[in-house]
Amino acid sequence: MTVFFEQSQIDQWIGEDASYLDLTSHMLGLHKQNTTLRYVVRDPIRVAGTEEVAEIVCSCGGQTQHYTPSGVAAMPGQTILLAQGPAQAVLRAWKVGQNLLEFACGIATLTHQVVQAVQTVDASVAVLTTRKHAPGVRKLALKATLSGGAMPHRLGLGETILIFPQHRALMGGWEEVGRAIARHKYALCEKKIVIEAADLDEAYRAAQAGADVVQFDKVPPETLTQIVPALRKAHPNVTILAAGGIHAGNAASYAATGVNALVTSSLHYAKPADIGVKVSLTEPAESQEPLVASKLEGLE
Amino acid sequence: MTVFFEQSQIDQWIGEDASYLDLTSHMLGLHKQNTTLRYVVRDPIRVAGTEEVAEIVCSCGGQTQHYTPSGVAAMPGQTILLAQGPAQAVLRAWKVGQNLLEFACGIATLTHQVVQAVQTVDASVAVLTTRKHAPGVRKLALKATLSGGAMPHRLGLGETILIFPQHRALMGGWEEVGRAIARHKYALCEKKIVIEAADLDEAYRAAQAGADVVQFDKVPPETLTQIVPALRKAHPNVTILAAGGIHAGNAASYAATGVNALVTSSLHYAKPADIGVKVSLTEPAESQEPLVASKLEGLE
Amino acid sequence: MTVFFEQSQIDQWIGEDASYLDLTSHMLGLHKQNTTLRYVVRDPIRVAGTEEVAEIVCSCGGQTQHYTPSGVAAMPGQTILLAQGPAQAVLRAWKVGQNLLEFACGIATLTHQVVQAVQTVDASVAVLTTRKHAPGVRKLALKATLSGGAMPHRLGLGETILIFPQHRALMGGWEEVGRAIARHKYALCEKKIVIEAADLDEAYRAAQAGADVVQFDKVPPETLTQIVPALRKAHPNVTILAAGGIHAGNAASYAATGVNALVTSSLHYAKPADIGVKVSLTEPAESQEPLVASKLEGLE
Amino acid sequence: MTVFFEQSQIDQWIGEDASYLDLTSHMLGLHKQNTTLRYVVRDPIRVAGTEEVAEIVCSCGGQTQHYTPSGVAAMPGQTILLAQGPAQAVLRAWKVGQNLLEFACGIATLTHQVVQAVQTVDASVAVLTTRKHAPGVRKLALKATLSGGAMPHRLGLGETILIFPQHRALMGGWEEVGRAIARHKYALCEKKIVIEAADLDEAYRAAQAGADVVQFDKVPPETLTQIVPALRKAHPNVTILAAGGIHAGNAASYAATGVNALVTSSLHYAKPADIGVKVSLTEPAESQEPLVASKLEGLE
Amino acid sequence: MTVFFEQSQIDQWIGEDASYLDLTSHMLGLHKQNTTLRYVVRDPIRVAGTEEVAEIVCSCGGQTQHYTPSGVAAMPGQTILLAQGPAQAVLRAWKVGQNLLEFACGIATLTHQVVQAVQTVDASVAVLTTRKHAPGVRKLALKATLSGGAMPHRLGLGETILIFPQHRALMGGWEEVGRAIARHKYALCEKKIVIEAADLDEAYRAAQAGADVVQFDKVPPETLTQIVPALRKAHPNVTILAAGGIHAGNAASYAATGVNALVTSSLHYAKPADIGVKVSLTEPAESQEPLVASKLEGLE
Amino acid sequence: MTVFFEQSQIDQWIGEDASYLDLTSHMLGLHKQNTTLRYVVRDPIRVAGTEEVAEIVCSCGGQTQHYTPSGVAAMPGQTILLAQGPAQAVLRAWKVGQNLLEFACGIATLTHQVVQAVQTVDASVAVLTTRKHAPGVRKLALKATLSGGAMPHRLGLGETILIFPQHRALMGGWEEVGRAIARHKYALCEKKIVIEAADLDEAYRAAQAGADVVQFDKVPPETLTQIVPALRKAHPNVTILAAGGIHAGNAASYAATGVNALVTSSLHYAKPADIGVKVSLTEPAESQEPLVASKLEGLE
Repeated sequence: MTVFFEQSQIDQWIGEDASYLDLTSHMLGLHKQNTTLRYVVRDPIRVAGTEEVAEIVCSCGGQTQHYTPSGVAAMPGQTILLAQGPAQAVLRAWKVGQNLLEFACGIATLTHQVVQAVQTVDASVAVLTTRKHAPGVRKLALKATLSGGAMPHRLGLGETILIFPQHRALMGGWEEVGRAIARHKYALCEKKIVIEAADLDEAYRAAQAGADVVQFDKVPPETLTQIVPALRKAHPNVTILAAGGIHAGNAASYAATGVNALVTSSLHYAKPADIGVKVSLTEPAESQEPLVASKLEGLE
Repeated sequence: MTVFFEQSQIDQWIGEDASYLDLTSHMLGLHKQNTTLRYVVRDPIRVAGTEEVAEIVCSCGGQTQHYTPSGVAAMPGQTILLAQGPAQAVLRAWKVGQNLLEFACGIATLTHQVVQAVQTVDASVAVLTTRKHAPGVRKLALKATLSGGAMPHRLGLGETILIFPQHRALMGGWEEVGRAIARHKYALCEKKIVIEAADLDEAYRAAQAGADVVQFDKVPPETLTQIVPALRKAHPNVTILAAGGIHAGNAASYAATGVNALVTSSLHYAKPADIGVKVSLTEPAESQEPLVASKLEGLE
Repeated sequence: MTVFFEQSQIDQWIGEDASYLDLTSHMLGLHKQNTTLRYVVRDPIRVAGTEEVAEIVCSCGGQTQHYTPSGVAAMPGQTILLAQGPAQAVLRAWKVGQNLLEFACGIATLTHQVVQAVQTVDASVAVLTTRKHAPGVRKLALKATLSGGAMPHRLGLGETILIFPQHRALMGGWEEVGRAIARHKYALCEKKIVIEAADLDEAYRAAQAGADVVQFDKVPPETLTQIVPALRKAHPNVTILAAGGIHAGNAASYAATGVNALVTSSLHYAKPADIGVKVSLTEPAESQEPLVASKLEGLE
Repeated sequence: MTVFFEQSQIDQWIGEDASYLDLTSHMLGLHKQNTTLRYVVRDPIRVAGTEEVAEIVCSCGGQTQHYTPSGVAAMPGQTILLAQGPAQAVLRAWKVGQNLLEFACGIATLTHQVVQAVQTVDASVAVLTTRKHAPGVRKLALKATLSGGAMPHRLGLGETILIFPQHRALMGGWEEVGRAIARHKYALCEKKIVIEAADLDEAYRAAQAGADVVQFDKVPPETLTQIVPALRKAHPNVTILAAGGIHAGNAASYAATGVNALVTSSLHYAKPADIGVKVSLTEPAESQEPLVASKLEGLE
Repeated sequence: MTVFFEQSQIDQWIGEDASYLDLTSHMLGLHKQNTTLRYVVRDPIRVAGTEEVAEIVCSCGGQTQHYTPSGVAAMPGQTILLAQGPAQAVLRAWKVGQNLLEFACGIATLTHQVVQAVQTVDASVAVLTTRKHAPGVRKLALKATLSGGAMPHRLGLGETILIFPQHRALMGGWEEVGRAIARHKYALCEKKIVIEAADLDEAYRAAQAGADVVQFDKVPPETLTQIVPALRKAHPNVTILAAGGIHAGNAASYAATGVNALVTSSLHYAKPADIGVKVSLTEPAESQEPLVASKLEGLE
Repeated sequence: MTVFFEQSQIDQWIGEDASYLDLTSHMLGLHKQNTTLRYVVRDPIRVAGTEEVAEIVCSCGGQTQHYTPSGVAAMPGQTILLAQGPAQAVLRAWKVGQNLLEFACGIATLTHQVVQAVQTVDASVAVLTTRKHAPGVRKLALKATLSGGAMPHRLGLGETILIFPQHRALMGGWEEVGRAIARHKYALCEKKIVIEAADLDEAYRAAQAGADVVQFDKVPPETLTQIVPALRKAHPNVTILAAGGIHAGNAASYAATGVNALVTSSLHYAKPADIGVKVSLTEPAESQEPLVASKLEGLE
């Protein structure tokens, strides 16, 4: 797995839905019948999360026969995961897996679209994802955005130095920020220092304060197009990011501004993918259905 | 709290973002300065999750001075939670709390709009939320939809009997389903039996099989308008639900069809609310700012 | 598994007994010797929990060769689970598995007796189990009562509406309860509303307040026999439950009163089954012993 | 607390019952009303677990005003814990606390009776409790048996050396056991070595093999009375325990046999205590009710 | 707290030592006596971990009156934490707290010595700590090294790019590494790329492959002194680290080589500090003892 | 496994280092390549922890081909664990496993040296390890000391009675301690009572108070040599321990004093073993390399 999920996370996803019995299946006497479960794509998507669903199926007592790996495209009608096992195992995994796939594939698909749109404009512009998302989904959202071709901006407070205006307010101003950086930069020699700026003037002050990276927040593309060259000229070694309000609808415009990367939270709130679920008794000699994507090179 | 969150859940939300140190604040020397944190609303919203953010602030080492309770409306510019404490406590809680509020208030706001739209059409039609959402967010999503005025459809596999076509496929057909219900219904005498149907014919078969509730899946409002009266006439005691593809854009149409309730997953994928964060050094004698909503009657 | 147990639960059961080393086995040099462990029944029982013990054995490093499934009868002398593995694995699982089997089989056996007694009197009367039991054992107790043929009354506060006199005391009286139900019943259209009553008069008031189900608490069978027909006549659609003080000794009497179901906590405090444990070095070519029950149809 | 319970254990007890919302209270609009909760004893009991219930109440959002400490007697009609708080907090704690008290007080009460019966016969005979009980309740059962005056026999595999016949079967016989003890006893010089014996002959062999303690298993009291003096004479320094089938009905007989202690599992399956629950709106100036036991010296 | 510790971590530390009862205190009747616990320093140290011990004391049921904050020096005889509470609370916390303080203060003290030694030689050389330590102690070790004045090198695999020879072996060689960097560097524009090198030649190849930081592994100080100027001349923007075998005994020599920082694991295996524990009955009007360090400016 | 580790512990070790992605491997495209990982010993060691590393590898998605069992010696150049699997699995396990092996083998190696040194002087003197170590590592440290040939002194507060001077201070003095022991000793008849003493006089008082074991704290070997015979003469049945400041440098001297066992914490802070890691692409028909130790008899 690209992202490591603890067994307790897998179990927690299952337990969220099936903490006690499956009352319906129990009433219907669906216990040990050999059952086949298929997740079938309804729209073209970029796959993410099938490895995790395979683990869910396994923890429920079933077995995954094959799946389309994360990072690969799938077409309408395609089965992206086929699992088998006793009815009670497979029916328990059903909705847990479906929820996960709809969430992760939805994000991966949108991410891929945005990355494609950006790279079409300028192949050297990266799409980076933020720490903004529903509480508790960071790992899965990361798996999904990686599957779509994006990279994380930062994954936690302990990873990079990113100075927001809120920090500046506490410090007292640009000068105090600059002094703190000057004093401690030697100890952070493996890190880049990122400072958020609202306009060109702040960007200059950020660079003078010691920023290796200037992150423009909520600056429109047309403005960025004007000020990025000025900043590059004054500080050629500074990396320039655009952040705040970037989404599928304006990513291409931002990509054309000359920045190094777009930082966006919008991918984490992508529309879920539409994944159908087929359940059937397992045929005695079930023929392996041909899979389009299994020959492709996936992320994992 | 309406919904019970374990301490480990609160801590896991914090740890997701701040598992190690806050590198930026550490470098800037922001440790013990008395700091005030405000979550400020940018659009009119229905509040949800402030009680949980108060717990996050507490677990980070700060204190919440006041907050707008879940279930209450808030206006642009309004501070819905004000916390104080040492800089390192408050800065650690900042984004964790913001993410939670944006997610929960976004859902509560959309839920409230849909409930209002539905009730305007027919005050006896309920809005019920499904088990479909990002993995791991069920409790928080429930808190948010309750705050917006909806009720849960069901919260897990062990709670109600809900027979999908997939169950029917495993059983062999309607007759086998009917026989299983006939055999076991006495033991489920406290429960209603819900069966999903794709059209009027299936609805009849469901009712004959013993359904107390028929849930139409993906039947357009105009069709429902025609078939609901027929089903009511044939089976006056049967509760009728509409599910599948219901969202803010068509909820009012569905509400006019004569069904008892709408079952929808769409609220769980609401656009996040836009919540700003203000951080400042705590004034020595900080005057308590007047809050619009604190006098209102919230959910809790 | 009928009931889903997280790996952390399996491990917690083991860790409760074997959190550090097995000092006795370590001193005796019992480490890697191939060892066979048999759980042998001393009295006729209804089996429950063997699937979970198989998981315990596996997590300890051993393997289960065969077991009698939950829900099946076992006779004195019968081996209901046979495991093999290194001595240290098998000896670690020994008492953990024995405790689980004695607890679960004890409950399943008593449950089966009570269900049989009730069904002999009236096959349409259900036995339902409550939320009363030792803290932390709900899932395992559920597995055991399901194995004995009972169904759960309710598994948590979020599942059904059950109005106790304590709620009524807070509301102010029957009228306030009735008003709340009238106002919210539409939103709970998939649920039945259960109200507890102490006598016929309260039952009438409950039904008038909107109860779908009236649960008599601590009403003796002879009284119930008199008042159930009256209630049925007045409210033919109301489901009637008897609860409070029902146990193996009086369940048949309650079954004859005309109620729909008996709600009982007593099964959770059943006498533990007496399960012996045999441990031996594994014979090089150990012949598989024939098992009586393995051909029978178990719960899972 | 005599026994340490992690916050996650407290929360898990609550979550077992109230993992999502309290549907009944939510429907009835019971949210913030100041509410008083009383646990009232119906029979004379020995109290256990009130400290843990106080923690449950606190984690639910309420406050415990006073409680009778564990280890103290309580009389019918006595309130052993009085808590207050918002309705939703108090109603969530209600059944969780009741279940805990019924379980723990039931065990403590029986334990106290058995200890009294034994000490009346011979004040130097101890009552020791085993590792046999429902899975997952060891800590709470320990709290309860300590509250009743018993001591634990052993709390896990890592604590003492206790050689069962099953170990002997793996070792090959008494001689191999004796050799292992001879070889390793120096390294266990802080521990006593306990060996189980079925009769006097085995007891002699156990003592010769190096046992500091001989534990007779399932030897009737009348037989013990005869063989204990012989064993004492032959091995005056050996501690003698009786185990297997000891319960409230025969403990006094066992106490008269001259053994040092009785080892029993039966206390863990005591009948639950009968604890009533009163719920009311909190009076504005609620007078503190006098408590009988609060002046007594409890265990904690 | 500089580093966030979940409640479950605090509880796990306590449970590791006190999972059941405190048998000694229970036997001695040490339950509720008001007790004072003092951690007293025996050698000059740099304090770390007192904030965490205060949480341990609290979770055990006691209260911390005052403590010396992490990051401050303490002198022999100085009490660095004074707690009070019932005997059973304080005695439970005793050894858990002592172990934590000895571990954390030991690391902080050595760290401070090494940082001082390094800064005396060259104030612009940082001391960075690695991911090498006993399993499970990363957070506490981080707290301790921060308290001693060091910074983390990296805290996990997801934080920085650090290419070891082992990666190179899998890639096939320097050229393949260089190609991968060239292809992906734009997407890591907020990160520095660190490559390990064994000698000057490898350092050149690393820089040519795109390294922002070259980390020399196990190169002796005398060799470094010679090659660092050459590398600086050829690649003036490259940051240079020394790693591998750096410890208190040679850190000053490494500091003189011209590198930017020393990367060391040795601090995590520092000798534990010697912290004595005094326990006494709390005096009725106990006078607050004057504390040397409480006036100093600590880390938190 | 000699010591039971829960799956959550294995996962927590992995998650500590690899909570999100492996950024370096991801950038380098190291995903599915078949990769071989070898842990190679650089100095002669006693192995400990390989069973746990095998579990880490498995949880990361790889497979362990063979390993040298804990408790066995290994020579420089020897591979003590060889694992294979996809690059991303093996690279994730790499450092987690290395850290564990360096910690555990370091302790086992030093333990073995001390045990050898002690046994050379007097084969009847045991080496016992205390509860002093870094927080959270008790189980792994126990595994390591057992692998080196030591035994645990005690593993938690609930296991033995060990009366420290701090207890005595709370009780009031020796007489109160003696009275408590006299009153409760019958209930602890399976346990030995251990009392710490600072000199011969205290040892006499301890024995008179009822100690089965006297533990001298910080008494130099030369003093012990003088006073042990006196104590043995006066109290021939008392077990005598030496504790406090015992380490590899003086263990042999302590072993010659006539005590029964040495109690030491120093082993838990052993220098980590030096374990190299080799990573390579798996050869298509990789020949199994011969292993020196795999034929030896390990601890497990």
